[in-house]
Amino acid sequence: MSVPQRVRVVGAGLLGTSIALALRVRGVDVTLTDTSPVSAALAADMGGGRLASDDDAAPNVVVVAAPPDVTADVITAELERWPEATVTDVASVKNAVVVAVRELAGADAAARYVPGHPMAGRERSGAVAARSDLFEGRTWVVCPDGAEAERVRDVISLAESVGARVVTMAPEEHDTAVAAVSHVPQLAASLVAAQLRELSEPAVGLSGQGVRDVTRIAASDPLLWTQILAGNARAVRPVVDRFIEELTAVRDALRAVEQPDSPAAGDGLGPGPRAVIAGTIAAGQDGQARIPGKHGTPPTTYATVAVVVPDEPGALGRLFVVVGESGVSVEDLRLEHDASVAAGLLEIDVLPVRAEVLREALAAKGWSVHVLETH
Amino acid sequence: MSVPQRVRVVGAGLLGTSIALALRVRGVDVTLTDTSPVSAALAADMGGGRLASDDDAAPNVVVVAAPPDVTADVITAELERWPEATVTDVASVKNAVVVAVRELAGADAAARYVPGHPMAGRERSGAVAARSDLFEGRTWVVCPDGAEAERVRDVISLAESVGARVVTMAPEEHDTAVAAVSHVPQLAASLVAAQLRELSEPAVGLSGQGVRDVTRIAASDPLLWTQILAGNARAVRPVVDRFIEELTAVRDALRAVEQPDSPAAGDGLGPGPRAVIAGTIAAGQDGQARIPGKHGTPPTTYATVAVVVPDEPGALGRLFVVVGESGVSVEDLRLEHDASVAAGLLEIDVLPVRAEVLREALAAKGWSVHVLETH
Repeated sequence: MSVPQRVRVVGAGLLGTSIALALRVRGVDVTLTDTSPVSAALAADMGGGRLASDDDAAPNVVVVAAPPDVTADVITAELERWPEATVTDVASVKNAVVVAVRELAGADAAARYVPGHPMAGRERSGAVAARSDLFEGRTWVVCPDGAEAERVRDVISLAESVGARVVTMAPEEHDTAVAAVSHVPQLAASLVAAQLRELSEPAVGLSGQGVRDVTRIAASDPLLWTQILAGNARAVRPVVDRFIEELTAVRDALRAVEQPDSPAAGDGLGPGPRAVIAGTIAAGQDGQARIPGKHGTPPTTYATVAVVVPDEPGALGRLFVVVGESGVSVEDLRLEHDASVAAGLLEIDVLPVRAEVLREALAAKGWSVHVLETH
Repeated sequence: MSVPQRVRVVGAGLLGTSIALALRVRGVDVTLTDTSPVSAALAADMGGGRLASDDDAAPNVVVVAAPPDVTADVITAELERWPEATVTDVASVKNAVVVAVRELAGADAAARYVPGHPMAGRERSGAVAARSDLFEGRTWVVCPDGAEAERVRDVISLAESVGARVVTMAPEEHDTAVAAVSHVPQLAASLVAAQLRELSEPAVGLSGQGVRDVTRIAASDPLLWTQILAGNARAVRPVVDRFIEELTAVRDALRAVEQPDSPAAGDGLGPGPRAVIAGTIAAGQDGQARIPGKHGTPPTTYATVAVVVPDEPGALGRLFVVVGESGVSVEDLRLEHDASVAAGLLEIDVLPVRAEVLREALAAKGWSVHVLETH
């Protein structure tokens, strides 16, 4: 299995340009095109290959990195134009694209199409944000169903050549997975953030790290997310239905707590309102515990070393020197802020047997440091 | 305004014990009690003061740090037992407690009660997790309405003496604020996480940093959160109602996209389904932009320096040495993980004019580093 020699990239956004850069670094002959001539020229200037022209040699592989809502049309056009080429895409929704391509291009041509989805590049967009190492260590989903085996090998080879770890699954399985682990979390984050719009200044000033984390991805692009959510409506809607059902049960429980004599309080036979609320939080604990830890391994138990960081220039830098010199391996870290504080709290996760070494190293240099219970 | 001389802490959990430790450090005479003798003894052993006894001198201030559902009863009992003392509490819900205390204790005694809520200590619990610096730089809400001025001064003085920044607001204003910035985000995080329970292993393996951030607080304690949500039902329910309404509009829009001929597709007069989805994501952007940045100041524009961190022991430590030696002030940082990756990505936010200095320092030591556009 070797890297394809000639690759054509259609769409010079973040993903298309990053793929082009990564392949060029590895000596692949890359041509680029985009409906926006400026985007294509920018990507080429950044080192993403040559602008496509009418007398290009036929590519071995075409990567379609167009917006989700035109992906199927572009794939079909590329399959027709290059009758020998393998065609893949990077859209974050798969089944709708597969169905459309089979219908538009016919079964024979569609056998040269291998659906793909690199799980990378979530928050920034455009060629300017592209990086040749964007896919290093990232998961890249490939859907082999219905495609010729050699075409599948071409796409896996391309994904692995830019450093990604390939996971194969059926298009429906992919769409169901991303509905739950990506699309519904996006909706929930946006709706939590939307509730902050009309709060008073002092009220929104009480925001802490919790709401910051929950709403971080609410900064994402509305147009792109409309295409993703609409494109995966079939898989997203059942998860949203269940979310609404469970949230409505909590809402009714809250009403029963407020008005114990109202019909919402129920007949006393089912679980009481507080049991409904507790069950919801407990179900969340169970679901959260299933998220794989760093590197897909089961969550490991770490000790947390918490250090008070004064709000002074260079404070974190000086702290890092001590952490680095201690020789203790940092597994994870979080910098905690609060509204209107004069200091932050850096939480450093380390192996429990190493926590005391790090604490002593920091305390010896005058840092205010605490070892928290393992988690 | 001086720190109260004798303080009685009722409830030796995370907050009560942390307050006791912080006051002892400052030389205050602290007595401790808890319905669990073991918890009280542990808190005293940690340096949180003496165990309360029947012949204690009357305290100047009583801090009630009991679970939310018994807070009003405990405050009332303390007001009766110590007829000269100022009484405050730390419950994360305020109006229900104020109303209950006025009813149970009468208006005269209730004038010695000053509602409080230190915004700290969210994820861990128990005396073992207590820290004397838990409140340093944190916001501590105090509700002066209806209390005698000298009582309010006592509580503000106590909160400031342990390093907190006091914000005063009415109980209803506090409850409305925390419903939106804390209680509904908790519910949304739990419900997003709950949808992961029945996913296949490969599906949950596609989890990335987005869903990790959204669901981090879903690990919180069900019993505590049931008390908080039930205690603030009056303020939480309207926010949940609006959340359900807006999510239902998205659900109907998804159905209209799936089945363009169904009644859900509407009459063509209102906004189309894609406009509803885009409007939801855009509303989330608007709400998220209102969350104050670090230290309550308006969000500042930083450049992000992204460094690829290999999964080797000590890699982050070596990296931190270079960051520290560069002299560049770190404003924020995030360590990004992906499922099944062999490397992480450390994103360091710095002032734009300093980004190139840091990039060069890291590149000179062989790190793979990129400056991303400012945000």
